Formats: sequence, C-alpha cells, structure tokens
Amino acid sequence: MKRIDGGVCAAKGFTAGGVHCGVKAGSDPAKRDLALILSEKECAVGAVYTTNRVKAAPLYVTMEHLEDGTCRGVIANSGNANACAPRSHENALEMCTMAATATGLKAQDFVVASTGVIGQTIDLAPIQAGLPGLVKSLRADAAGSDAAAQAIMTTDTVKKEAAVELELGGKTVRLGAIAKGSGMIHPNMGTMLCFITTDCAITSAMLQEALHAVVKRTFNRVTVDGDTSTNDMCVVLANGMAENPQIEWADEDFDLFQAALMELCTALARAIAGDGEGASRLVTCTVSDARNEETAERLAKAVVGSALVKAAMFGADANWGRVLCAMGYSKAPFRPEYVDISFASAAGEIPVCKDGAGLAFDEDKAKQILTQDEVVIQVDLHEGDAAATCWGCDLTYDYVKINGDYRT
Amino acid sequence: MKRIDGGVCAAKGFTAGGVHCGVKAGSDPAKRDLALILSEKECAVGAVYTTNRVKAAPLYVTMEHLEDGTCRGVIANSGNANACAPRSHENALEMCTMAATATGLKAQDFVVASTGVIGQTIDLAPIQAGLPGLVKSLRADAAGSDAAAQAIMTTDTVKKEAAVELELGGKTVRLGAIAKGSGMIHPNMGTMLCFITTDCAITSAMLQEALHAVVKRTFNRVTVDGDTSTNDMCVVLANGMAENPQIEWADEDFDLFQAALMELCTALARAIAGDGEGASRLVTCTVSDARNEETAERLAKAVVGSALVKAAMFGADANWGRVLCAMGYSKAPFRPEYVDISFASAAGEIPVCKDGAGLAFDEDKAKQILTQDEVVIQVDLHEGDAAATCWGCDLTYDYVKINGDYRT
Repeated sequence: MKRIDGGVCAAKGFTAGGVHCGVKAGSDPAKRDLALILSEKECAVGAVYTTNRVKAAPLYVTMEHLEDGTCRGVIANSGNANACAPRSHENALEMCTMAATATGLKAQDFVVASTGVIGQTIDLAPIQAGLPGLVKSLRADAAGSDAAAQAIMTTDTVKKEAAVELELGGKTVRLGAIAKGSGMIHPNMGTMLCFITTDCAITSAMLQEALHAVVKRTFNRVTVDGDTSTNDMCVVLANGMAENPQIEWADEDFDLFQAALMELCTALARAIAGDGEGASRLVTCTVSDARNEETAERLAKAVVGSALVKAAMFGADANWGRVLCAMGYSKAPFRPEYVDISFASAAGEIPVCKDGAGLAFDEDKAKQILTQDEVVIQVDLHEGDAAATCWGCDLTYDYVKINGDYRT
Repeated sequence: MKRIDGGVCAAKGFTAGGVHCGVKAGSDPAKRDLALILSEKECAVGAVYTTNRVKAAPLYVTMEHLEDGTCRGVIANSGNANACAPRSHENALEMCTMAATATGLKAQDFVVASTGVIGQTIDLAPIQAGLPGLVKSLRADAAGSDAAAQAIMTTDTVKKEAAVELELGGKTVRLGAIAKGSGMIHPNMGTMLCFITTDCAITSAMLQEALHAVVKRTFNRVTVDGDTSTNDMCVVLANGMAENPQIEWADEDFDLFQAALMELCTALARAIAGDGEGASRLVTCTVSDARNEETAERLAKAVVGSALVKAAMFGADANWGRVLCAMGYSKAPFRPEYVDISFASAAGEIPVCKDGAGLAFDEDKAKQILTQDEVVIQVDLHEGDAAATCWGCDLTYDYVKINGDYRT
C-alpha cells in the first residue's frame, strides 16, 4: 500500500468538481460552496451517520436513497446545514432532483449532504443556477477533487484529502477521499462529512463492514469540542472499475482493503483534529497496556476531550494532573496507582508521572516538547495489552472567537 | 424561611476563620489559604464526594473520619490539591493531627479538604506554623465565615457564602455555608468544596438523606467545563444547638429543613456557575414539560455544557441550533419536532424555535436579551410535566487564558 495524490479522483471512473454558487447570501464569491462527485458506473455503497437524535434532513434523504445499496454520486453544499428549518426534507430531496436533472441521472442515485448554519431554510435557487456550470467543470484529476474538497469547507482552514493505492488479485486498486470538519466535532458512529471513492470491486455488505470497523477507530476517535453534529456523514462509493476479483467475504483481500481504508481515514481524522476550530496544535493521546481496547479508547477520548487538558496544551503547560483527572471521570475502569504518563513530540519525550504520582521533571524541556505542532500524551496503564489512540486539539482564544459569533 | 447573613457562623455554636500561611511557595501574602471551622458541640454529619475514580487523599481521610457519623470541625487549604503526589495520604492525616493539636481535639474529629494544583507534594510546615494564629483568629460572626470563605478560593473571583433561617418546632434554626468552585467544575454526586453548618437537631441519617436529595438538584446541575474534579466534597455539620425537636424521620420538619438546605445550595450553585473561570455571564437552562425529571436534567445539562452554546452565549449570539444539537447528542429521549426554545433575561424574552424549526426573530432584541448578566435558555418539550434547571456560564477568552497557564 502507498499514499498517492488525487483525492476522490484517484480511483478509476470518478470525476469531481466544486464551484461558488452563493448558498449563503452575501458570501465571498471566491469561496466554493457546491460540490459534486460522480461515478461513471453504478457503485456499491457503505455509509455511517451521526448518532445525534436531531438529524439533518439530507441524512434521512441519503438513507432512503442508499436503501438499495447503490448510488452514482454525491451532491453537497456548505453555507447552510439544511437542518431544523421549515421545508428541510423537501429541499434535500429537491437538491437530488436538481443534481439528477443536471447530470441525466435519477434523484435516487444521489447522496446529499449539507454543512453550515442550523435552523435557516436553505435557498435552492443558487444551487439550481450553479449546477450546469458545476457539471461542466467536473474533472477526473486532482484538480477536480481539490475543488470539491474546497466546496465543503466551512471554518476549516485546510482542505482535507487523501488517497492510497494497493494491489488486489493482481490489479491496482485505489481509494481516495475528501473530508471537512473543524467545529461541532465529536463524531459518534458517523462523522463530519467524508466522501470516499474507490474502484475496488467489493459488495455493499463488505464495504459497510469495512467502513464500520474503520470509522470506529478513526473518525470516532476525534474530538474538537465534544459537540456531535446533526449533519455528520461518511460515505464510501465503490465502482469496481479496478477489475480485481470482487471482495465478497472477509478474506485476505478484504483485510488488505480494510487496512487501506484505515490508512486513508486515519490521515483524514488526524487532519480534522489538527484543524480543529482555532487549534494551534494536534493533540494525540495514546493509552496502552489497557485491559481492553474499549477502556483504552474511553480514557484517551476523555483526555483529548477535557477542556482543561486542551487549555493546558494551548499554554504548553505540562499539567499532567488534568490528564489523570480526565481519566478519572471517564467512567472507564483503571487503577490510578499503576498509571505512568509522559509527553512526547518531535522535540523529545519526558516522563511526568509514575505509579500515579508526580515525577520531578525539567520544566524547560517540557515546554520545548509541548510547543511543537503535534504533541502526544502517552499513558501506560500496566494492566493488559490493549491500546487506543484518540486525536484532538488545543483550546485557544480563536476557538472562542470563531464560535462567539459564527452565525451572524 | 428567610435569607440571613453570617455564612457558616450563622448557626449557633460555630466559629470560623481563615489566614495566609503560604501553602504555595511564593504566594501572595494577602491571599488567605488555610481555613478552619469549629463547632462547640459534637455534630451529626452528612457528606458527598466526587465520583472521579481518581480521588484526592483528603477525601479518603475524611471518609474514614466520618465513619461514626460525627465530627467537630473542618480544616481546609487552597494552593495544593494534595492529590496524586507522593505521601498524599500521610499528609492529609497529618493535617488533621495538626488541627487536633492546635485545638485540643482529636484528629478523627476533623474533615480535611484541599484544593489547588494536582500532583505536587504539599508542604505542611506553613500549615503547622499558621495553625496557632488561625485558632486564635476564630470568630463566631460573619467576619469569621468571610475569612474562611476567602481561604478556600483558588481562581474564584467572588467569595461564596449563604445562610438561611427557619422555624422548627417553635425554635429558630439556622443553616449557613461557604463554597468554592470556578474551574474543573462538573460535579457529579459530590461537588466542589462546600461546607455547611447548622444548629438544627437532626440525625446523621436524615442529614445525609437531605444532603443527597439537595446536591442532586443543585451542585450536580452545575457545569463550568465538564471536568469533574478529584477533590469535590460537600459536607454538612449539624450541632443541634437550636434545640428543636430532633429530626429523626421524613416528617414535616424534615421537609422544611430540606427546603432550607435546597435554598442555601441553590444560591451557592448559581454563584459557582456565574463565577465559572473567565465567565462573563451565568447561563441557566430550564427544560420543562418533559416526560420525566431525569430526561429534563440530561437535556439541560447538555445545553449548558456545550462548548458551542457557551461560546455563542459569550458572543450574545441567538444560535439556538446549537441548543437543539446539544439536546440531540445528550442521549436523552425527546421529539425534536415538538421542541420550542426561547431566550430570556432581565431585558425580556424572545421565542426562536417552535416545533423544532426556526422562527423569524428580531436580532437586535435577541442581542439585548443575551447581553445581560444572567441569560435563561427555556426549552419546552411538550411531552409531560417534569422539569429541571441546570446552571453554567459562557466560554470566554479568559477561560482559555486562566487555564492555558494555571500551574506555573
């Protein structure tokens, strides 16, 4: 397996594009806000959605459209979440109909997704007006994926794309993805928006199984602010054009495909955490030697989710007491008196807590380690051999600034 | 029942004081950091503690000392949490012995509590040196309670005290309390530090029952940052000197006593939320017409705990979509399509969401309502007749500033 360029256009038979159409009145004409991804052939499809009880209308429409396990493309907009507003459902359906008209496909062929402000009725006129130009702009190369990735960004500061290549049954198989996510990020089962394409030949059932296993260990281990969005969605489209022997059960090829999907989603999960709203650094917590993976995951998630740990990471303060405190209220079982904690980064590693009690350490060295772009909080439970890694970011003035007045 | 002055010295037979002794090396000599509360007579006692799996040593020592249901006083320090550090347990025991020596009582007569940085070994020398002066300074009036309240403050910006008076069996009974809490506030079963005194004659069992019922609906409904501390503790001491007929079961007098305790703790819970680290305003969420109280509480707590709602409140932004989103991920059952939301304050009330969808509203009026010192988010579920109120605060630049470098 190797990392390649091309995003959602890396796999055979996929085209993508993104344009500005003006979903949000008065928005910057340079900001793309409407994305389209199309497959030349019908795709097997897997999808996971937010577990928030309040789900945006596009999610319900997408669920209906994917009931037959197939689709042909994705239409997505930023600038309005199309959630909790009058006519949300009708508008999500209508977006698919518009995409179908512009492409000569059926409305049921489309996944539809929206991201932006909750509670305001979406204006479809700009979308209808923008679609013909968007269809014309579709490209099968990296530029097409780039444009689509830009079009789904909201408060994201960097575009999120990745692609990988592997061999299956003597054929080259590619997977690529675009994602967005910066605030209201605390995915659970589903995730922010992530669209994955692959030319792998695989059944919908196996695709769904791989996606579930991977999302659980990647996007669901990211938290920016503890707020699980109403619009989270992760969809994978597989059009089979790589002509590998179709993956129909959990054989060796399935394992290879799943490992590639894991590589892809891990890269995007890290990108989302590192680009958390206002974040100045990626904060990774790895809990090892746990009695089981679930325990390790709950502990690591509590650590990266703690407002106090996040603020300490912003201040490059080696305040490990907050790490242990967050573990303590996570409701996961562990013995505080066995716990070792250290901080690590490109600048080195420093142990700060052994057997649950503080160690004397060099504050200057700690500061140096904690001021890097990625900081790892390493926790050793000395209780077993399971481990989990979760990703988050620091809590900064900019997070407060961005969210103190996002809507207006 | 009426509100009175005097804090923990309001009830008969209690004295209190607070001095600076220098628990934290180099701390401001004007900042008191050692508090003592004493009762003339032996007290029945009730207590609740943090549910954090990592509990500070003073909590374990206090649990041991309260096993017989009685005590005579409280020794507490700020500047060091005496948690997760070598010799924590021995030091907590030693603090009680020192208090006993200085007062002529037994070590087992004392509740011991600490608040401050986690993970650093507490230096007892300043405490030993400060105790004789502290004992000499004890007073039975409001000034004594004030000094004790100041001595337990950390990042608190206002001292938290309250007292009430009621009649029981023809006798005047008083209850008073001091509390601290500003950051790492998300109490669960226990709470930050709160010491309550009363001259009511009541058994330890009934005292514990009243405290449990009240803490559940007051301190446990406050959240500042979602971080449940390792040191939370709420203790009530009852010395019986009001000479009311002893409360031994859940009779009418018990109900009156519990209502007074509720009044007292509600006032302190609101004070703690409003003085959340960096907070510029108190944010109250009331969920009404719920199918049961637990549902209402979970929903209200998710709303006041949401980083995005908190940031919107800081920006006085009527972003109700975040309120509904937070309710959605709370895991409490409700029907989004029945929900009404409005914002209220001293400046008026404005409905923003009806039947789960947005209403057009006057942004200027909303801004005016949301810029007050206390803002109430009112949620009506239209599903039943239960209700709950939770308290929090806004998320500000100052929260990040305070916690970006608290330890050093």
